[in-house]
Amino acid sequence: MREFLSKKEIALLKAVQTRHGRKKHNLCIAEGLRCCRDVASVAKDLIKLAVKRDDINVDYEAFNEVDFVSVDANVFKTIAPTVESQGILLLLEKANDTIVEPTDDFIILLDQVGDPGNFGTILRTARAAGLKEIWYTNGSVDPFNDKVIRSAMGSQFVIKLRKFSSLDDACVTAQEFGYNKFFRTDPHGGESCFNSQELFDKSVIVMGSEAHGVADFENARGLNIPMLGDEESLNVAQATTIIMFEYVRRTVENN
Amino acid sequence: MREFLSKKEIALLKAVQTRHGRKKHNLCIAEGLRCCRDVASVAKDLIKLAVKRDDINVDYEAFNEVDFVSVDANVFKTIAPTVESQGILLLLEKANDTIVEPTDDFIILLDQVGDPGNFGTILRTARAAGLKEIWYTNGSVDPFNDKVIRSAMGSQFVIKLRKFSSLDDACVTAQEFGYNKFFRTDPHGGESCFNSQELFDKSVIVMGSEAHGVADFENARGLNIPMLGDEESLNVAQATTIIMFEYVRRTVENN
Repeated sequence: MREFLSKKEIALLKAVQTRHGRKKHNLCIAEGLRCCRDVASVAKDLIKLAVKRDDINVDYEAFNEVDFVSVDANVFKTIAPTVESQGILLLLEKANDTIVEPTDDFIILLDQVGDPGNFGTILRTARAAGLKEIWYTNGSVDPFNDKVIRSAMGSQFVIKLRKFSSLDDACVTAQEFGYNKFFRTDPHGGESCFNSQELFDKSVIVMGSEAHGVADFENARGLNIPMLGDEESLNVAQATTIIMFEYVRRTVENN
Repeated sequence: MREFLSKKEIALLKAVQTRHGRKKHNLCIAEGLRCCRDVASVAKDLIKLAVKRDDINVDYEAFNEVDFVSVDANVFKTIAPTVESQGILLLLEKANDTIVEPTDDFIILLDQVGDPGNFGTILRTARAAGLKEIWYTNGSVDPFNDKVIRSAMGSQFVIKLRKFSSLDDACVTAQEFGYNKFFRTDPHGGESCFNSQELFDKSVIVMGSEAHGVADFENARGLNIPMLGDEESLNVAQATTIIMFEYVRRTVENN
């Protein structure tokens, strides 16, 4: 086990802690024992460099064949993205967008969702709901930001992510792929997510940030999540979860 | 509008930033414009003291009849719980547990849910699902912690919170109130939340922390959230959301 990092490696680890650096190098960081184990178990081939503090035990099945560099606490502190570091991190190649045709029954399109915890939770939940991809627009948080990786438990290395410059741009691409029904969440009306018949039938469901909501756009059908209380809105991650698991419910019921 | 805080007020504002202080004084803090507006609109009578930085505009309907103390930026900085403060906070009386009989069709019991964001999100979502109360056990995060108040958008001042020393203790009380079916989430088996017939029929549904899961206990029936993907677990807030909105779906469908 190697016990030092080169200057170049240290510089790289620091560089990818910014959005600019992640874009330039096409790399990102996963941090913390649980998160690193999750990522290693799904995306071992994307690991470029594994670093641990010398007191950390990495004797887990997920880390088989992962070569850690083991450094002392002072060195680790200089490279750790978070102040209260858990003493382990992975430098990872970002999974690539691809031009392969989507195969999911429907597309969740996140429009300017800026909160890392929400974005990450949606990715993790999408994976549990069996989705193969998530689309998002410019103005959303960087999905390879370390907070998003932590909330998503590494799901960004399993789920395909497609980024679009705008909502319109995403809708055009969706239609080219044969997804031609468009829904946007609307707290004040529209079809109920619990009985809209075409909701998961080659459709695109646009989820907006809490701050701005979803802009109205051509051909958009309103989609409403019924509520029983007086609280007007749901957190975007909760709203997306309810919709995705309505899909799971219908799928399980029909099988 | 008063422009200074007394020494006693400043000491109190600092004291309630700890769990111990909140317990001793039966007070807590809501912070940030959006959060304060949410709280003021649902629980004006619980406001003991309202403080703003002198550059903050509080000309909103929610703040009618709220008397703000307006202080300069340096003073505000010394009393703000967060480093990047939004310049407005409310000192609030904690809503009280009561011994009134529960009226909800089912009880969500949070067992040692320690993450403030998850706890708060569950409170906010419970309100949207029409629940009147949430139960929780010792070892959970303090629901009046400022992070929980922010995630919950002040729902802790609307929803009744009951704290129990242990899971067993909560189950005994539930039975006294006539809630005598007990479910615990089980990722590997049990009844499906999408077709369990008695799930919302005077039942208690125990949700555990991700770290520990829910301990098995007497008479507990397993409850499973079906998934289509390979991701083994859901975040506790997402799992609770799916179950609560399955209740909403059934209720809406039967009306």
